[in-house]
Amino acid sequence: MEVTVAVDCMGGDHGVRVTVPAAVDWSRRDPQCRFVLVGLQDQIRAELQRAGELSSERLRVHHATEVVGMDEPPANALRGKKDSSMRVAIDLVKSGEAQACVSAGNTGALMAISRFVLKTLPGIDRPAIATMLPTLKGHTHILDLGANVDCSAEHLLQFGIMGAELVASVEGKARPSVGLLNIGEEDIKGNEVVKEAAVLLRGSGLNFYGNVEGDDIYKGTTDVVVCDGFVGNVALKTSEGLAQMLATYLREEFRKNPFTRMLGLLAMPVIKSFKDRVDHRRYNGASLLGLRGVVIKSHGSADAFAFGFAIEHAINEVRSGVLAHISERMAAPERKVKPA
Amino acid sequence: MEVTVAVDCMGGDHGVRVTVPAAVDWSRRDPQCRFVLVGLQDQIRAELQRAGELSSERLRVHHATEVVGMDEPPANALRGKKDSSMRVAIDLVKSGEAQACVSAGNTGALMAISRFVLKTLPGIDRPAIATMLPTLKGHTHILDLGANVDCSAEHLLQFGIMGAELVASVEGKARPSVGLLNIGEEDIKGNEVVKEAAVLLRGSGLNFYGNVEGDDIYKGTTDVVVCDGFVGNVALKTSEGLAQMLATYLREEFRKNPFTRMLGLLAMPVIKSFKDRVDHRRYNGASLLGLRGVVIKSHGSADAFAFGFAIEHAINEVRSGVLAHISERMAAPERKVKPA
Repeated sequence: MEVTVAVDCMGGDHGVRVTVPAAVDWSRRDPQCRFVLVGLQDQIRAELQRAGELSSERLRVHHATEVVGMDEPPANALRGKKDSSMRVAIDLVKSGEAQACVSAGNTGALMAISRFVLKTLPGIDRPAIATMLPTLKGHTHILDLGANVDCSAEHLLQFGIMGAELVASVEGKARPSVGLLNIGEEDIKGNEVVKEAAVLLRGSGLNFYGNVEGDDIYKGTTDVVVCDGFVGNVALKTSEGLAQMLATYLREEFRKNPFTRMLGLLAMPVIKSFKDRVDHRRYNGASLLGLRGVVIKSHGSADAFAFGFAIEHAINEVRSGVLAHISERMAAPERKVKPA
Repeated sequence: MEVTVAVDCMGGDHGVRVTVPAAVDWSRRDPQCRFVLVGLQDQIRAELQRAGELSSERLRVHHATEVVGMDEPPANALRGKKDSSMRVAIDLVKSGEAQACVSAGNTGALMAISRFVLKTLPGIDRPAIATMLPTLKGHTHILDLGANVDCSAEHLLQFGIMGAELVASVEGKARPSVGLLNIGEEDIKGNEVVKEAAVLLRGSGLNFYGNVEGDDIYKGTTDVVVCDGFVGNVALKTSEGLAQMLATYLREEFRKNPFTRMLGLLAMPVIKSFKDRVDHRRYNGASLLGLRGVVIKSHGSADAFAFGFAIEHAINEVRSGVLAHISERMAAPERKVKPA
């Protein structure tokens, strides 16, 4: 299936140096993919040339005169920068010229502009940010990661439905299991919102596992983990901090003296294979799920390798028809799942 | 300074097999320490004998006929088991026969019984669970870890004061920095409670750093990290899950084939030194802070080495007079810190 992806080429810490090579690389790997490269055209063309390409039907350059700053208030970006690369890329999804947008820019601005331009799917009150994380069993999907700091039980239910449809569509899993992030397994645990959400999830027809705890994320207890954006953001950032600390400590231990340095060199293939398994770049690309269009947020610090995974997520979501599946589910009577 | 610690010998996954040897070991290391070993006396005496000791003034056995189950509802333990080892150990703190209680039992029951028997310090609405975590710079203290799932801004302020007094007292640090766990550094980030808490903390006279994010915990950005119990519990459990996953992956990589196994053996001293640095057993022992008495909760799965650290926390809190310092601070006009 042919897919056209609009790339906000100016977003992220590295801008065109990362976004353009990643799109070029992907266009070579998948002949069914087209890219609209949005941003300052001179910069984009220079990068294309460096990668040995020219603007073409499959790598079309679309000029946009403004750039959203990484720390710019979302309201500024939304109201003041109608010709930013981010805004224009999302406009292309709205008009149907592209089926998905990928950006490594300012998350708040991307969410604000996406909601304003694309609107939410029928029955969805708020979009959520969903990402994949590695687990002992493979990987899991967690949402929300920061779009919604205050959630009602109904919002958490909607996140559960969206997460389950995402896994069912993209991974072809029949009835993905959904866990509700809490501070204990028992029903009596947690705050009122979480307790009420558990009741809604249990009656939803989803394959609801029940409460899960923080350690269940990396155990891979369920296919989907649902939480509010405050808790999800803290869990994700805490994980990043811990992983960095452990990596630093391990490096220091191997650099202690000439003998440990030699061991480090010898063990390099083992360490490299370990690093590859948990390489966060392979998990780059969070979905802004619940919009009338596929929008993928790449980490701002992503390199071209990582940005490629964000592009892959966009393509997979388009091809699997996840948005149509969410809409169908939301329109179904009582939003029940069809029996498996 | 002489300190008497009441040990709930029956709590935890391993009961007397862990608690008694840890107390014996500590009594040998610190002649100023006395222990009251509370629980089923036959079991305790048998363990003492195995450790080459008899009941003595410094290792006194105090019989208690009941045991609180690890999954028992706290209300049951509180109302139905007046002669449980946990209850009797806390009663000993109340009566002044001991200055601290250490238990590896059911957290909910320990908190409920402690609140009921000891009550909170003047000015403290709710006790919080505080623990120490390793960081890139040393360690940090985080609270609350699950005692309070719904917190007001005022509660978060009280946690900040208690955390700062804990670090000031036990570590002798003049004005410990306090961070508020949030999902961004900017003041506009987070939910209403967190925003209001930031205002209160800024006006409190504490050395308030401002908002910190999840990754700041392990970066060691501040001496104290304040959050509600839901968020803190998820952050801690998520860390446990990630650490376990990474350890499993690393082990698997070193066990892949005979060559990697050999490398693993060679690298053993490096891996061991790394493990020692982040050994969670060294961080065992969470304070139930804000009560009129020192109560330390050990991890249920602790071994004697880990339980020893929980005992050490109890002794340090007693000797440093942290409870008196919290009371003084809460009684001070506007609860301002004395100028450094």
